[in-house]
Amino acid sequence: MATPTQTKCWVLANKPTKNPTLEGAQPTFTLKTENLPPLTANQLLVKTLYLSNDPAQRTWVGANVPEGRLYTKPIDVGQVMGARGIGEVIESTSAKAQKGDHVLISAGWTEYAVVGEDQVSAIESLPGGLSETHYLGALGGTGLTAYYGLLVQGEAKRGDKVVVSGAAGATGSMVVQIAKHILGAGSVIGIAGSDQKCLNYKSPSFAKDLRDATDANVDVYFDNVGGEILDMMLPLMALHGRIAACGAISAYNGEDALPLKNWFQVITMRLRIHGFIVLDYLNKAPEVRGVLKQAIADGKLRVDEKSQTVVSSSFEDIPRVWMKLFEGGNTGKLVTRL
Amino acid sequence: MATPTQTKCWVLANKPTKNPTLEGAQPTFTLKTENLPPLTANQLLVKTLYLSNDPAQRTWVGANVPEGRLYTKPIDVGQVMGARGIGEVIESTSAKAQKGDHVLISAGWTEYAVVGEDQVSAIESLPGGLSETHYLGALGGTGLTAYYGLLVQGEAKRGDKVVVSGAAGATGSMVVQIAKHILGAGSVIGIAGSDQKCLNYKSPSFAKDLRDATDANVDVYFDNVGGEILDMMLPLMALHGRIAACGAISAYNGEDALPLKNWFQVITMRLRIHGFIVLDYLNKAPEVRGVLKQAIADGKLRVDEKSQTVVSSSFEDIPRVWMKLFEGGNTGKLVTRL
Repeated sequence: MATPTQTKCWVLANKPTKNPTLEGAQPTFTLKTENLPPLTANQLLVKTLYLSNDPAQRTWVGANVPEGRLYTKPIDVGQVMGARGIGEVIESTSAKAQKGDHVLISAGWTEYAVVGEDQVSAIESLPGGLSETHYLGALGGTGLTAYYGLLVQGEAKRGDKVVVSGAAGATGSMVVQIAKHILGAGSVIGIAGSDQKCLNYKSPSFAKDLRDATDANVDVYFDNVGGEILDMMLPLMALHGRIAACGAISAYNGEDALPLKNWFQVITMRLRIHGFIVLDYLNKAPEVRGVLKQAIADGKLRVDEKSQTVVSSSFEDIPRVWMKLFEGGNTGKLVTRL
Repeated sequence: MATPTQTKCWVLANKPTKNPTLEGAQPTFTLKTENLPPLTANQLLVKTLYLSNDPAQRTWVGANVPEGRLYTKPIDVGQVMGARGIGEVIESTSAKAQKGDHVLISAGWTEYAVVGEDQVSAIESLPGGLSETHYLGALGGTGLTAYYGLLVQGEAKRGDKVVVSGAAGATGSMVVQIAKHILGAGSVIGIAGSDQKCLNYKSPSFAKDLRDATDANVDVYFDNVGGEILDMMLPLMALHGRIAACGAISAYNGEDALPLKNWFQVITMRLRIHGFIVLDYLNKAPEVRGVLKQAIADGKLRVDEKSQTVVSSSFEDIPRVWMKLFEGGNTGKLVTRL
């Protein structure tokens, strides 16, 4: 194959205020073709194989994000949409990777990219014939988020009663497993829109179901969704309960205010709410990956094809696959296979 | 004087859902006369001299407080309204106090009360001729709340930028002084409804004033009010900022939801929100009182008649004085002198 000199890529066309859209006069993204620069020293030309789909990406493109108030540089109109992924090395001027290697990249929604050797990391083989895509999920940032959020930010202890929202999603489903099988929580209650093993927030009896299941005595709430479910959880927390505030997917696609009725419970029950971003823990990634791999080997942690939903996609359909995140239907980590 | 055998008292007549009221068909309180029991061993008959007025009392009488979700037993209809105060011992069967002694009591809105010797504590004299009423404020629960909330829950450190709401009130004004003169904060910004030295939340330019004054880089927010000001503060917190959630006076007299627009900032800026109740720190009261007395002696902490507003009142006017708390006009600790 001749070395490509151009690449297709999806760039941000309009910052969305509500749901991202591919239609109409103000589409969120637009497909472009751009020139690739020639390789200089210590660089790689990579071809994107897989893309990670994360709710947090929505926050990177949001309108009205004030300067300096996001944990990463927001994506500007005209820039390639950001995403983590796995790429195959096509050409290399680096001693660290050679043609054919698979590497973790953060090149975004692009077919090809020229990246520096320090912007990629190598992929080790996984035990039990697990797909390398788990490096985007259970054994990547998702697993790290779940582990550190639960144990460090949520200060969860053996025997605790733990509630997890977004429990069918990538992070939530890992939190449930870590709480049950690594931590030894006293009980773990998941909240999701569909999963059979979870409380269904779409059920008309959800408020009562949640109260009955928790007995208003929750030690740790791992919050992936914010919004109304957060408000419902406040009166169900135990004295000195902890809330690990990981995500607010309920708010990402809208500007409506969260009507919080139960804030006073934060005071009366002496709750501790800790917001966190996994980027702060990247130096712990190898250690946590080791813990999780050992738990897989010990049969405590189940990581398999049910832990992810891998969707084969044309390059043109990348945004459509990503937008499935906000439909509430996917199970486990949503990965795009190109 | 003959030993009284009856006492006037204000009892809870109807749990308020909005503003407490003394009028109409559903008055919050009603004045009653009740019999006093005879003294048995180790008891005191006390006459109330001063009553402490605290926003938290509103939460003790609120309708719709679910069982077990308040830090103290709620006051039921028919019970005497709760309050801390200072009483004079009229008769004693206890070796711990004698006739004429002044003691701290929690007997509520009652003219006389029979209390056990373990339900009162002695009042030591204060330096510099300070009034004993400061044991209800700066050197009592108020000072303890301010000190522990700022230094322990808010994890405030020397050089920090600190914002305090309710800054003209009893707790807030102590927080401002402790931050400035004991902690050595880098800057201290108070928010109040009237105080000249504070940002005025009633000003049409308040949002801009607050942003300009804080430069969106607040290390510690000591929150006495909750509500809209809390929401405005979230985008002004520094990375890893801390919020000491002490009160939510904005919500005490209403059931309206707090429209929180900026929750996501808790996550992106990794904020830590800690709710707390001073009751958890009562064992630290003597230690903190020592620190504060020393600071007064060193000229670092100003506690004087400006630290409190003492209102002379008939017994009949006790509820009216208390309700001044919710009008936003009082400065420092509001004390009722009978």
